[in-house]
Amino acid sequence: MSQKRSKGRVTIPTDVDVVPQTLELLERWGADAIRDCDGTDYPDALKQVGAKVYSTYYTTRKDNAWAKANPDEVQQCYIMTGFHTAAEGPLTIPLLRGISRELLEVNHRDDPKRWWEVIDRTTGQPLPPGAWDYDPAAGTVTIPAPEPFHDHTVSFLAYLIWDPVHMYNAVTNGWKDFEHQITFDVRQPKTRKFTMERLRKFIADHPYVDVIRYTTFFHQFTLIFDELKREKYVDWYGYSASVSPYILEKFEEEAGYKFRPEFIIDQGYYNNQYRVPTREYKDFMAFQRREVAALAKEMVDITHELGKEAMMFLGDHWIGTEPYLPEFASIGLDAVVGSVGNGSTLRLISDIPGVKYTEGRFLPYFFPDTFHPGGDPVGEARENWITARRAILRKPIDRIGYGGYLKLACDFPEFIDYVESVCNEFRELYENIGGGKPYCAGTVAVLNCWGRARSWGCHMVHHALYQKQNYSYAGVIEALSGAPFDVRFLSFDDLREDPHALDGVDVLLNIGDGDTAHTGGAAWEDPAISAAVKRFVWNGGGFIGVGEPSGHQYQGRYLQLAQVLGVEKETGFTLGYDKYNWEEHPDHFILADREGPVDFGEGKKGIYALEGAQVLVQREKEVQLAVSAFGSGRGVYLSGLPYSFCNSRLLLRAILWASHREDRLERWFSANCCVDVHAYPEAGRYCVVNNTYQPQSTTVWRGDGSGFPLELGPNEIRWYGI
Amino acid sequence: MSQKRSKGRVTIPTDVDVVPQTLELLERWGADAIRDCDGTDYPDALKQVGAKVYSTYYTTRKDNAWAKANPDEVQQCYIMTGFHTAAEGPLTIPLLRGISRELLEVNHRDDPKRWWEVIDRTTGQPLPPGAWDYDPAAGTVTIPAPEPFHDHTVSFLAYLIWDPVHMYNAVTNGWKDFEHQITFDVRQPKTRKFTMERLRKFIADHPYVDVIRYTTFFHQFTLIFDELKREKYVDWYGYSASVSPYILEKFEEEAGYKFRPEFIIDQGYYNNQYRVPTREYKDFMAFQRREVAALAKEMVDITHELGKEAMMFLGDHWIGTEPYLPEFASIGLDAVVGSVGNGSTLRLISDIPGVKYTEGRFLPYFFPDTFHPGGDPVGEARENWITARRAILRKPIDRIGYGGYLKLACDFPEFIDYVESVCNEFRELYENIGGGKPYCAGTVAVLNCWGRARSWGCHMVHHALYQKQNYSYAGVIEALSGAPFDVRFLSFDDLREDPHALDGVDVLLNIGDGDTAHTGGAAWEDPAISAAVKRFVWNGGGFIGVGEPSGHQYQGRYLQLAQVLGVEKETGFTLGYDKYNWEEHPDHFILADREGPVDFGEGKKGIYALEGAQVLVQREKEVQLAVSAFGSGRGVYLSGLPYSFCNSRLLLRAILWASHREDRLERWFSANCCVDVHAYPEAGRYCVVNNTYQPQSTTVWRGDGSGFPLELGPNEIRWYGI
Repeated sequence: MSQKRSKGRVTIPTDVDVVPQTLELLERWGADAIRDCDGTDYPDALKQVGAKVYSTYYTTRKDNAWAKANPDEVQQCYIMTGFHTAAEGPLTIPLLRGISRELLEVNHRDDPKRWWEVIDRTTGQPLPPGAWDYDPAAGTVTIPAPEPFHDHTVSFLAYLIWDPVHMYNAVTNGWKDFEHQITFDVRQPKTRKFTMERLRKFIADHPYVDVIRYTTFFHQFTLIFDELKREKYVDWYGYSASVSPYILEKFEEEAGYKFRPEFIIDQGYYNNQYRVPTREYKDFMAFQRREVAALAKEMVDITHELGKEAMMFLGDHWIGTEPYLPEFASIGLDAVVGSVGNGSTLRLISDIPGVKYTEGRFLPYFFPDTFHPGGDPVGEARENWITARRAILRKPIDRIGYGGYLKLACDFPEFIDYVESVCNEFRELYENIGGGKPYCAGTVAVLNCWGRARSWGCHMVHHALYQKQNYSYAGVIEALSGAPFDVRFLSFDDLREDPHALDGVDVLLNIGDGDTAHTGGAAWEDPAISAAVKRFVWNGGGFIGVGEPSGHQYQGRYLQLAQVLGVEKETGFTLGYDKYNWEEHPDHFILADREGPVDFGEGKKGIYALEGAQVLVQREKEVQLAVSAFGSGRGVYLSGLPYSFCNSRLLLRAILWASHREDRLERWFSANCCVDVHAYPEAGRYCVVNNTYQPQSTTVWRGDGSGFPLELGPNEIRWYGI
Repeated sequence: MSQKRSKGRVTIPTDVDVVPQTLELLERWGADAIRDCDGTDYPDALKQVGAKVYSTYYTTRKDNAWAKANPDEVQQCYIMTGFHTAAEGPLTIPLLRGISRELLEVNHRDDPKRWWEVIDRTTGQPLPPGAWDYDPAAGTVTIPAPEPFHDHTVSFLAYLIWDPVHMYNAVTNGWKDFEHQITFDVRQPKTRKFTMERLRKFIADHPYVDVIRYTTFFHQFTLIFDELKREKYVDWYGYSASVSPYILEKFEEEAGYKFRPEFIIDQGYYNNQYRVPTREYKDFMAFQRREVAALAKEMVDITHELGKEAMMFLGDHWIGTEPYLPEFASIGLDAVVGSVGNGSTLRLISDIPGVKYTEGRFLPYFFPDTFHPGGDPVGEARENWITARRAILRKPIDRIGYGGYLKLACDFPEFIDYVESVCNEFRELYENIGGGKPYCAGTVAVLNCWGRARSWGCHMVHHALYQKQNYSYAGVIEALSGAPFDVRFLSFDDLREDPHALDGVDVLLNIGDGDTAHTGGAAWEDPAISAAVKRFVWNGGGFIGVGEPSGHQYQGRYLQLAQVLGVEKETGFTLGYDKYNWEEHPDHFILADREGPVDFGEGKKGIYALEGAQVLVQREKEVQLAVSAFGSGRGVYLSGLPYSFCNSRLLLRAILWASHREDRLERWFSANCCVDVHAYPEAGRYCVVNNTYQPQSTTVWRGDGSGFPLELGPNEIRWYGI
């Protein structure tokens, strides 16, 4: 770890009971900003210590008096019951079965016949309002004469009577004797007016505060708990808790068509990450983004008027503020802070355009789930730092920071020592990069239904949380977060609307399972899409598909780009065709420095190679890696690619091969894949960084193709002039 | 093995060079019928030996003089080129690339503009006839101005200038110096007239023949070879080689709508086993069945008129003669003979209704691929016999027989000995069963798109051939072929058309991958289907789903019977839902006698249990076996079930559990799953049979619940009175 060099670029949490410790850490970690957290208070003694003060500001909660006085403006969400099969006779559906009644309360105020839907899921048709009755006392809907043996669901509105993040924090930390904070809806007229006054009052009451850290604006991402207070459903990008009749009537006016609950309910899938978004959902998101941005701007303007900075937390009530879309810049925020779980989440923050600075909140949170006897906070911190550092070296955040209860961390002196070294190293590399752009070996674009809206987050169900079903895909994004490429995120709509969308792109990537938003589903039935992509590759572009790229059964193909990729998926429909192309070509450029078998993660079953393709890896006659030519361009198929150093290297090689740039491999390159080389031509520097906890030997290649051997200590980063 | 008892019920092949050997085997094997084969002649010396004589009769070939004189009535097939991507400018598509030119010849006679289709596969639309040109000299189609970067295919008619089975036999046996036999189309007027005269002449010329063994009638199942004479495409049920403009015009008349090549081409999938059949394809099959049956009846009538028996080979040119559909019985055949690859193929033959007798042709064929130095014909014969015997004991064929070149078999005296014991054992068990129906513990019905049409053959791509993608499903049918149940095969159309279709059924099975004909695909969007099945289970029925049963994305479910089965598939759409039901219940009735882990074959990824279901086996949080209640009924989910003794036992238990008949387990039952017990109440006998090559100990349970211990030798079958 580096020597101490300087101060600044670090934020620490505090509380009334840890003033001396806070002062010590300000010094040791070189911190220049102090923050409070959910459940802490800012100590008077720290109001004048020469550090910037952040105050967490909860736009939608922490004022139950207001919430209780205005129950009609408590935030609402759409939610669907489970599936209920009618037998003979009436069917009664309990609305809140399986849902925490501490979290949600059925909306009794707005007319259920207008705002709810009872759907026969066997036909897909909503029942006429006269065909069902709501019993407020029982909390049930009864269908007196349902079609026998049809399944039914009820989509209804409910109030968030306990803020989901407050509930999560309370349950996780075992809080006792406190009041559930109710979420109110700033979008509605009374609360909107109140909120602006409340913000002015808060700023007036907290003159020592420099930065209003909005946590966050108006609508919580979808987060539901069950009767046992366990998480039931989560979607970090979910809009289902951003609704109210007031909002929906405005939406109807703007959209020019009638709103249906099903636009949000989406068969119970709530338009999650994997769902190919409907026109109506895209309209609704766009509407919300515009409205949220306008209202957030009002608050930011007040913040600025009163002489404070406005910072947004990237998470929690962040719905409508997707920071890569144009509406975001119009809010006028000074800064964004977000939680760093890995390289992808780091880039999700650091790449945000249009703010003065970005800040990453590192892990672990100072919460008792890590900071307890037997816990390993140093291990978690080291893992988090090394993982994020790869991405920081491509595009640094401007600041780092920590959150939680400082008192807990102070019981772990090794942790305090380790974070001190992290702070120093961060400042060193930030200064060395000097705001310049690192050397890139090309431009890649990730193509899916979400495009820029979900830049870096396109495989996140809940932030950086592992999912067995997506780590083999998220691994590609994670590898890209530290790779020497310009990375864009493109949507199918971009391809449709902008004939220049692929200009400057060297390699397109399409990653995920078939018939999901990640790969496009029915978008491939649009000739404009498939022809644009084929034209791009035919004329020399590269295409890398992972999993079931372009997977959608249509016109004789499951993989719509089978010709480009050289592979197809066996769905049974081609089982009658004999397959003879199984010979492996392990010496191909992509595998040239590979030692040992490739880890494809969950992989895919039933992929076979077409004639003319080159199989690089097949296992039990299921192709895992293959390459193909298409016109002047090249296609690469991968069954999956979990993140690892070796797999990052494989992806690097695949991108260079797909873009006919094999000759760029040994430029700013380390022979050992555990070691990265990043060059900053504008700053006249480059670094060599060991991403492991062991010493590493490597050969380093400079930009001119010259090389030298190097030994690096564990985690070491070494800087050179160019 | 049993002692020699009797003679009869056995057919052997012969040839002019093996007369003494034939006479010896007539005696040793107790054979009472002799047959010729493709490429053999019947010796004069064997015309009067007191054995029935079968003569293979090739309705569609072995008369090249006729075929060459009538090239317009050579059999045709529809075939599709590969996919060709247009760049800028004209696109030329070679018609026969990748196809053996010895097998097919482009049909130049009938107007391509009327009978072919050039399809833009990017839009799914056929090009107008004016938009493409056929060049007969080059054998290509050119599209002068295609849409750039759209894919195109050509569907065209070609003549079968080499009979595919003749080609297969010639290539397999390395035949030299022979003429390729051309397939002619008996359905067309000149050849039809000629055929009836030819048949009369053949019978007149062969007075010693007793049985005309039709091999087969008019249309070969789909079988294509590539330029290297390797098999390119096969579908044992495929109708693509049953077409001609003459036939198609008749079809148009009957159907009342215009024929399109795409009805047969089906995007290049040729309406194979896995494809949910379209209305047009079902219409076409029904039309063909009626026409084929009427024409075959004409030949059978002549056969009878001239004093011979008519036997049909179940295979080769058998298209249109599906023996479980009503048209078949109208043909009036005396017998059906078919190849026995396993238990399913045995039942495929032995269950055929409406014929006087059935015969199984056992393996190995006396071909040089087995009968060569170092070959193991005894091993293959033993495997074949033991495998088939399970099914014979449920429903015996009436005769067994062998095929090929007897001369080859005579070089393997151990094989001759082994088959002698098989013949004796077959006669013994046939006599003991005495035509009665064995004890059944219930009735199961396999539900798919094909129903009775593909009884026992519903998972066969090419007869009993192994496929990695289907052995985990075919295993269920194989287990049923020897299990103590009445087995029906039901189609979704049966459910739609007959309100009593499920009467008498105890357990429904739905087996296969989602969106295939095996599981139903969009059939589940029909409320009549899903409600009928749910009603059946709700009212006490059982449902066993294997793989992705009822798998079709619709209205919030991938598995449409998720509620019934208690499981759902994770497609990503429900990744936001937390899953808590993972606890295994290994003591459940279905697993009660299980030792060691269950082999689920290929299994399935991403299956999770719903609340309320009981997980019996999950691996890495992917459910392999689960059970659930639905109303008064029960559902069982299995991820796959390759055939094995243990898995047959598991299926038996699953069926009994699903039908609330756990108490019937220890009735006519062996504690050791390598041993089966079959009871024949009408014959007053039961047998205990060791299905392995090792001795086995077991406890045998009689129908009254009493039991006794038993030791059995390898393969031993022991008979008792009831």
